[in-house]
Amino acid sequence: MRLSDLQAITHEDLLITRLGPRTVETPLQELLGNRQESVHYVTETDRVLVDDTLGMAKNRGVDAADLPAFNPGGPRRQLFFDPSEVTAAIVTCGGLCPGLNNVIRALVLHLRHAYGCRDVLGFRNGYQGLADGSEPLRLTPDLVRDIHTRGGTILGTSRGSQDPATMIDTLVAHKVNALFVVGGDGTLRGAQMLAAEAARRGLPIAVVGVPKTIDNDIPWIDHSFGFQTAYARAAESIQAAHTEASSGVNGIGLVKLMGRHSGFIAAHATLVAQGVDFTLIPEVPFTLDGLLDGVRKKLANQGHAVVVVAEGAGQDLLPPSTATDPSGNRKLGDIGAFLREQLTEGLSDLPLSLRYIDPGYAIRSVPANAFDAVYCTRLAQAATHAAMAGFTSVMVGSRRGRFINLPIALATATSNHVDPHGDLWMAVLETTGQPLSL
Amino acid sequence: MRLSDLQAITHEDLLITRLGPRTVETPLQELLGNRQESVHYVTETDRVLVDDTLGMAKNRGVDAADLPAFNPGGPRRQLFFDPSEVTAAIVTCGGLCPGLNNVIRALVLHLRHAYGCRDVLGFRNGYQGLADGSEPLRLTPDLVRDIHTRGGTILGTSRGSQDPATMIDTLVAHKVNALFVVGGDGTLRGAQMLAAEAARRGLPIAVVGVPKTIDNDIPWIDHSFGFQTAYARAAESIQAAHTEASSGVNGIGLVKLMGRHSGFIAAHATLVAQGVDFTLIPEVPFTLDGLLDGVRKKLANQGHAVVVVAEGAGQDLLPPSTATDPSGNRKLGDIGAFLREQLTEGLSDLPLSLRYIDPGYAIRSVPANAFDAVYCTRLAQAATHAAMAGFTSVMVGSRRGRFINLPIALATATSNHVDPHGDLWMAVLETTGQPLSL
Amino acid sequence: MRLSDLQAITHEDLLITRLGPRTVETPLQELLGNRQESVHYVTETDRVLVDDTLGMAKNRGVDAADLPAFNPGGPRRQLFFDPSEVTAAIVTCGGLCPGLNNVIRALVLHLRHAYGCRDVLGFRNGYQGLADGSEPLRLTPDLVRDIHTRGGTILGTSRGSQDPATMIDTLVAHKVNALFVVGGDGTLRGAQMLAAEAARRGLPIAVVGVPKTIDNDIPWIDHSFGFQTAYARAAESIQAAHTEASSGVNGIGLVKLMGRHSGFIAAHATLVAQGVDFTLIPEVPFTLDGLLDGVRKKLANQGHAVVVVAEGAGQDLLPPSTATDPSGNRKLGDIGAFLREQLTEGLSDLPLSLRYIDPGYAIRSVPANAFDAVYCTRLAQAATHAAMAGFTSVMVGSRRGRFINLPIALATATSNHVDPHGDLWMAVLETTGQPLSL
Amino acid sequence: MRLSDLQAITHEDLLITRLGPRTVETPLQELLGNRQESVHYVTETDRVLVDDTLGMAKNRGVDAADLPAFNPGGPRRQLFFDPSEVTAAIVTCGGLCPGLNNVIRALVLHLRHAYGCRDVLGFRNGYQGLADGSEPLRLTPDLVRDIHTRGGTILGTSRGSQDPATMIDTLVAHKVNALFVVGGDGTLRGAQMLAAEAARRGLPIAVVGVPKTIDNDIPWIDHSFGFQTAYARAAESIQAAHTEASSGVNGIGLVKLMGRHSGFIAAHATLVAQGVDFTLIPEVPFTLDGLLDGVRKKLANQGHAVVVVAEGAGQDLLPPSTATDPSGNRKLGDIGAFLREQLTEGLSDLPLSLRYIDPGYAIRSVPANAFDAVYCTRLAQAATHAAMAGFTSVMVGSRRGRFINLPIALATATSNHVDPHGDLWMAVLETTGQPLSL
Repeated sequence: MRLSDLQAITHEDLLITRLGPRTVETPLQELLGNRQESVHYVTETDRVLVDDTLGMAKNRGVDAADLPAFNPGGPRRQLFFDPSEVTAAIVTCGGLCPGLNNVIRALVLHLRHAYGCRDVLGFRNGYQGLADGSEPLRLTPDLVRDIHTRGGTILGTSRGSQDPATMIDTLVAHKVNALFVVGGDGTLRGAQMLAAEAARRGLPIAVVGVPKTIDNDIPWIDHSFGFQTAYARAAESIQAAHTEASSGVNGIGLVKLMGRHSGFIAAHATLVAQGVDFTLIPEVPFTLDGLLDGVRKKLANQGHAVVVVAEGAGQDLLPPSTATDPSGNRKLGDIGAFLREQLTEGLSDLPLSLRYIDPGYAIRSVPANAFDAVYCTRLAQAATHAAMAGFTSVMVGSRRGRFINLPIALATATSNHVDPHGDLWMAVLETTGQPLSL
Repeated sequence: MRLSDLQAITHEDLLITRLGPRTVETPLQELLGNRQESVHYVTETDRVLVDDTLGMAKNRGVDAADLPAFNPGGPRRQLFFDPSEVTAAIVTCGGLCPGLNNVIRALVLHLRHAYGCRDVLGFRNGYQGLADGSEPLRLTPDLVRDIHTRGGTILGTSRGSQDPATMIDTLVAHKVNALFVVGGDGTLRGAQMLAAEAARRGLPIAVVGVPKTIDNDIPWIDHSFGFQTAYARAAESIQAAHTEASSGVNGIGLVKLMGRHSGFIAAHATLVAQGVDFTLIPEVPFTLDGLLDGVRKKLANQGHAVVVVAEGAGQDLLPPSTATDPSGNRKLGDIGAFLREQLTEGLSDLPLSLRYIDPGYAIRSVPANAFDAVYCTRLAQAATHAAMAGFTSVMVGSRRGRFINLPIALATATSNHVDPHGDLWMAVLETTGQPLSL
Repeated sequence: MRLSDLQAITHEDLLITRLGPRTVETPLQELLGNRQESVHYVTETDRVLVDDTLGMAKNRGVDAADLPAFNPGGPRRQLFFDPSEVTAAIVTCGGLCPGLNNVIRALVLHLRHAYGCRDVLGFRNGYQGLADGSEPLRLTPDLVRDIHTRGGTILGTSRGSQDPATMIDTLVAHKVNALFVVGGDGTLRGAQMLAAEAARRGLPIAVVGVPKTIDNDIPWIDHSFGFQTAYARAAESIQAAHTEASSGVNGIGLVKLMGRHSGFIAAHATLVAQGVDFTLIPEVPFTLDGLLDGVRKKLANQGHAVVVVAEGAGQDLLPPSTATDPSGNRKLGDIGAFLREQLTEGLSDLPLSLRYIDPGYAIRSVPANAFDAVYCTRLAQAATHAAMAGFTSVMVGSRRGRFINLPIALATATSNHVDPHGDLWMAVLETTGQPLSL
Repeated sequence: MRLSDLQAITHEDLLITRLGPRTVETPLQELLGNRQESVHYVTETDRVLVDDTLGMAKNRGVDAADLPAFNPGGPRRQLFFDPSEVTAAIVTCGGLCPGLNNVIRALVLHLRHAYGCRDVLGFRNGYQGLADGSEPLRLTPDLVRDIHTRGGTILGTSRGSQDPATMIDTLVAHKVNALFVVGGDGTLRGAQMLAAEAARRGLPIAVVGVPKTIDNDIPWIDHSFGFQTAYARAAESIQAAHTEASSGVNGIGLVKLMGRHSGFIAAHATLVAQGVDFTLIPEVPFTLDGLLDGVRKKLANQGHAVVVVAEGAGQDLLPPSTATDPSGNRKLGDIGAFLREQLTEGLSDLPLSLRYIDPGYAIRSVPANAFDAVYCTRLAQAATHAAMAGFTSVMVGSRRGRFINLPIALATATSNHVDPHGDLWMAVLETTGQPLSL
């Protein structure tokens, strides 16, 4: 995200869609006290600045009230829904990510215990379960009590989109008035279409997104849930590669990590594991000759080399691919297998022992670590507050440490990248000792 | 931290002390490229707003350039020191905390590799090693290579203060011109005094603090290093208590966690572990009768109860103590032992199996987890940038996701607390189901 | 266990009690094939030698067929029970131990899937649930599917004995013909009494013990389940103590571990953690002066000292106690608190930082590690085979890597100790460097 | 291992080669006491029976003194070497395995501290370092202090053999009189050749093997070091596969585990992880149709299927390979990739989500778990005792819980397999529910 992006954000971009004018008193007031001093409800005029790094001089003359600002997350004194009449529904879409069950569990507990909602339904296998007529699961507090200790999603998941009209029919048939959609870019676009279809029909159904991407490439928020768990687990794979490499004669450890368009996992796992010599990410191009030269020098100087590559890095070095996955994402070329081959060939004059590690699925399926466990719980609570207040076509996330509600349209318009000129990448460069460009 | 605190911050509070006017070109430019586009150096006029939750209406008419703002961390194009003439020194003070060795390691690597400093010395056992004439350890990259995988501090630590004049004499004798002090509240006050003594003598010695507190009670920053590791480990103790409690007849699991004045560890560990029925923190008073009644009801309804208590909670229920530890902190009464006794007596009409767990030292001494490993590395880099730029009597930390330099005086003036009316505590209340007041 | 104990074992000691002469074909034959070559059923004449360390010369003239030998565990071609008419029951008694849920789960799955038993009941809270008229839990494969990932016992537990006649009445009322008792010394004695009472009434009820003791002090078997998990966890506490001790000035780390009468956990955890200077176990007496001198020397030479003490060690140094716990075990004096006091006083001329860690419950309540998970599963299968074949008043265990059935009377007659002259203790002495006697 | 193998063992097979008649008093006597009662030294006539499962009847008439028996491991009262004149050397060969550094560390500490040896040298990169003239590492207690916390081997490793004459020349040049060889089948054969070459030249050099194979296929011993760590880690991969499979629509989790000729890791990991539907091992043939049918049924009945395959399983289904690795082992066909392809094709009529996990190197490179840490320490101590007593061409291991010395010739003559008719495989069949033959 560049500063120029920030400046392009208009007040309109930040406007949150909200269902009609109906308001009810919140049952949270009973639970948490309705005295003025009890809990800080978010008031309608609260805002969180989009940009808090304001060079003072350049802002001379700008009215503080005109700075672009997000709508904050949190409980409202006035709700759109009467919770006792709410049937909520949850779907989980796309690839696995640590924390899915924590989000499901916290949604159920919060909707039932904090707001007193009538019922929570879980549709199976992502959007597919909203379209294929299969019976949803009734999600009770008892049923979800222990699910946070397990990876994966108890609701199942699938890729790909479905017809919005059919899905809205399903929601209507089950009297659902609040839908929580947990998924990535494509899934969130689907949520927008669902909200639009509901609006078209005049149906008061709140559609709230909980953004999920193990790559951490969702813009405007601090980090996506599961990201910390993912890079911690990825670092273990790097450590394994480092152990193998440093125990062999001219040992090379090559690790392919997730990151289709962004190198956050590769960068963070590098900082955790230490001992990496080259970190390759989509945001920073490299040449094969540069890499081969670099590895050759490392072998000569320290006897081994460790290379970490994000799956989306170096795609320009591979033959172009036109295949797509069921979610419509372009299939990437396999940079890991390619580099294994190229390193083996390009250094064939040396006795080599190259170890290639592709931990892939092992990273996505682990349970959430302590941080993500807390984050998922609070994220689900923020999503519940948003839905009960009647926000729709909106997603929740933490920005600069505060929960915000932001229009899905804003979140799907761009994506988040490692800034090659920023301090994260600088920390990686110092850790690896690799040159600024390979 | 209340909003009212924010408003009390003056421009003067935020002023960072900097050593004299001398400037040199930075060797980082060679390493990272000195072209305009290479790495974003922090410019002298950059600022990070203190408050980014500005209700728009109320700010009407305020000039954005007048909003209180912090000095951002990061590399400067112009340094105060010529790194090739810098001998840096490190001391670690006070209790153990996960990540100390990561900080030491990253300071050494950054000072030596990124800036090319002449030497890095490690004084042993905190301030004591600066006063007792013992020989410091020479910290080379080789020596620190693997220390981040271990808990504790290779430099050793001690509590208590020493005479600033003697310590400055030691620094002068070893030609130290940049001192990094890793420690808590008392330690940072000591750093202020060191900086003052150096200033009094006209010595160009930068004193930079890396704040350490496992309780996470340092104000103005997002979290102290080691905090995440600590609450993840604390959650394991809660899970043990929950397992014991739920396997026994009228089982009570009582866990005492760290938190002298703030309940952050107790609150976060509760959210991670789930299954807690009562979380007691210093910020929220409770009565013994309220707790006994609550536990009695839980035993009746679910057959067991889990109580988590921060060490500083309920101090008003204990006989007052006047003892102090070597750091001068007032010794707290032992609320854990007290509650064990009170619960046993107060519920003596029931067959009870109470298990008391006090994980204390087991939490402080573990190695940093993945998140803290990354954070410690970047914190040490920020501290290095600050020292090389000539800032002194300053500490570094991440605020709202950005590194800042802030005057130690500001950091030691207040401390950070769980807001009983904020969303963290609300999340705890919902998770435990405990009443707003016990 | 001494060689002299082995020689005292008579053929009579090894005789396994078996219910009457009725035999049926085993349904396992259908599952696993009834051809001769399919699975090695144990034949009635198979035996496992009690002693396999026979100095050859001294055995000259002894007939190999006369060597004392155990009854091997495993499936029999001929059963006593028709599984389709069997209602089995499970109770878990005494303190928690890693692996309890694994044992319960494997019993249920094996009884239901491998043998086709009618029903499996779980009585709650140990023997108490067999006496207080409370309704047992119906243990289905679905209900136990995921319990092995959790510590504790889903059945609950309690200490103490109950009237055998009442308990047999309960079993009769629920048509139970096979009872699995998971517990320690006292519990197994209770199982003997239950089997005796059933025999007195002529009831064909098989009572099979699965021995449980976190101290690993059950004689004749390789190790009790959960033991490995326990010492692995205990080693983490030692590592914490070592980190604390070596980071402080004259740091002393003192860790109290389980081990009422035997030092197996202390010895193994010492070998895992390394860095221990003194390991104190019940089998090897020590004097306070010897320990104080030893610690003082370590502080002088290496600056810190780590002491590991089993809870049953040094009881002769404490005032005698006459109190007992509900299981009738004599309450031990608190050697940990005593040593903390004695070390603090006895070394009060030095600036000390003593850290005392008592991980107790945190060790008992963790889930089983991989080894114990496998062992618990196979132990439960062995117990099932024994019960279906009609053995009673018998317990199962692995001896020298093979599963055996042995009379409970033999197991409760002695207990297992660390041999102060054997290779385990020798390995500890070499690791700690402590003198043969303190 | 079949019973028939046991019967084929002759007394000659069990004879341990020992260097000449020279004997010295052991310094261990000083350390551990030389009184009769202090430590149980192994006496020259002690033996451990090869077979302890003697059906009593069939042994009628066999003299107990004639039963085949192993030479027990442990300290001897009389040594061949004067330790103060011993320079020992260590090499680690072949693939990585958890515990290598623990073995190195314990050898160094035991040789230096318990026996007082003059020096311990570490030759680098396996046998290569004994042949290429490179300088060995001097292994001091200080240097190895913390290496047990890391995976891999600090000595490096390589595959393949070297000329015995050259290697003996190297040993002579460095005055080595005791060589410890840590490695697998091929490595141990090399050790035999080294011992033979030394004998040919009349050189008193003890060559002692510490058998290493992550596959656990070394005969006559309970388990190879690192095996437990390996299957615990392998179980995590199965859990990941299970999570993926059960979260998808017709999810298939396919996991390839180590096991060239034996299925121990696959079998144990299956028992740990649970939730596996098909476990395929080299010892039990299967047909592709059988597997496809089985998986299809599982998908129909439970919606997902998990398949675990040892790398050596189903090799008859693959095109024959004639390639070999540098150690001379025949390269196996890639059964994992083959099954992925066959399952995808054979079930192409269904919407599938197949996840393939090949954790390979990630398993070999982790640090030893608590059990293996203890085992490696004691194994190294046993190896040291053997060498000091003058045994050569011998390897050490635990058999039925006791350490033994056995001729390398015996260990390399056969290998250890999962008995398809034994209780381990039976436990797997019951856990997976797969048919006896696929």
